[in-house]
Amino acid sequence: MVSKNQLKLIKSLHQKKYRNQYGLFFVEGLKTVNELLTSHFEVEHILLTKAMKERFEKNETLLVSEIDLKKISSLQTPSGILGVFKIPKIKPLDLQDWTLALDSIRDPGNLGTVIRLCDWFGISNLICSPTTVDCYNPKVLQATMGSIARVNIVYQDLEELIVQSELPVFGAFMDGDSVYEKVIPKKGILVMGNEANGISTDLEKIIESKISIPQYGVSTTESLNVATATAILLNEIRRG
Amino acid sequence: MVSKNQLKLIKSLHQKKYRNQYGLFFVEGLKTVNELLTSHFEVEHILLTKAMKERFEKNETLLVSEIDLKKISSLQTPSGILGVFKIPKIKPLDLQDWTLALDSIRDPGNLGTVIRLCDWFGISNLICSPTTVDCYNPKVLQATMGSIARVNIVYQDLEELIVQSELPVFGAFMDGDSVYEKVIPKKGILVMGNEANGISTDLEKIIESKISIPQYGVSTTESLNVATATAILLNEIRRG
Repeated sequence: MVSKNQLKLIKSLHQKKYRNQYGLFFVEGLKTVNELLTSHFEVEHILLTKAMKERFEKNETLLVSEIDLKKISSLQTPSGILGVFKIPKIKPLDLQDWTLALDSIRDPGNLGTVIRLCDWFGISNLICSPTTVDCYNPKVLQATMGSIARVNIVYQDLEELIVQSELPVFGAFMDGDSVYEKVIPKKGILVMGNEANGISTDLEKIIESKISIPQYGVSTTESLNVATATAILLNEIRRG
Repeated sequence: MVSKNQLKLIKSLHQKKYRNQYGLFFVEGLKTVNELLTSHFEVEHILLTKAMKERFEKNETLLVSEIDLKKISSLQTPSGILGVFKIPKIKPLDLQDWTLALDSIRDPGNLGTVIRLCDWFGISNLICSPTTVDCYNPKVLQATMGSIARVNIVYQDLEELIVQSELPVFGAFMDGDSVYEKVIPKKGILVMGNEANGISTDLEKIIESKISIPQYGVSTTESLNVATATAILLNEIRRG
């Protein structure tokens, strides 16, 4: 049975401060927990409700009541299984392919979707500006669907990254050149900007290639959501 | 000043049943309200807080207190402006271009993002199965960002649509042929399926071309989110 102290600790992991303090985060749902168990992530605890225990055959789990699970869950309807894992050590970056860099992405759902896209398109390294939402935020993890296990995520100053790297740097801008007409190199860095303000002006100055997704039909003031724009641009990079 | 009855009516518009009964829906935020005011939508009421009144110059508005607005708003932090509009009459379908058809999309955020994508890529007609979430749902409208004004949305049985239409029909499937290798016709219908189950088996039988977005790198059990998959496929259709 899970202890009161364990419940208190897990509840605190909703906050970035405590995730960093304890070096832990949690995910929910049978599929995601199973994916993380077969990944490089080290497990700390698995909490199961009685009903879920029959569907989960591994040992060393902690029983949790539905009521207690609801108290610590990030879901309106908890799934009956919650896994606590260790935040992995950062792997040194090896930028031999395309890398995605996010400048101040604030919405957890957007970051989660972008991580899932990196997984789909085989982008191994995702670099986030320190102002980007924390990737171990429960809402981010809910949207990644286990993809977090296959993408190396690093928080780093993007100016530093770009200045130090010798790779070609592409950035998504409303007024960039059509991505359809660009020659896409074999490797590079793609920078995507904040939901409301796009790429910051300081970064803009050091980005060589400004690209955009052509709007079709009537021109409006709208932009694409950052996750859908990232989907389209990663597809453009990979389709060649 | 807005009356108690008006507040009660607007609050009821959170539910589809009352939206249909009154033929009304509401949107929030200065940009979205302004976009709908300059569109074919007919306005019923504009509610403004005192603070917002200075930023909005049109006449015939109703003053609302911050407290009352919070009670009827769909937002955690209301923006100070709420517009009630009439649900428009359905325009007859004229399928002379690409049309998007959604089979049981349940998540309001996904439908909102898809409407925004239709707007970006100039897809004028969006056909939703009757099991798809209502497009006048406040959470859908929050995600569309005014694009609702430029896309004709019709709820209709998709089997009927496909059988009656002479257009080529493409459907997104995990095991479809690579979209990169398909010859994309000048017009057609693209069908996207439900978040968990994809396109229903009854519809699958009458779809001629099954397409998919190639996965890059390690093959996983994950799929793409329906909104990001729609983004990529509409981009493929429009880039030619």
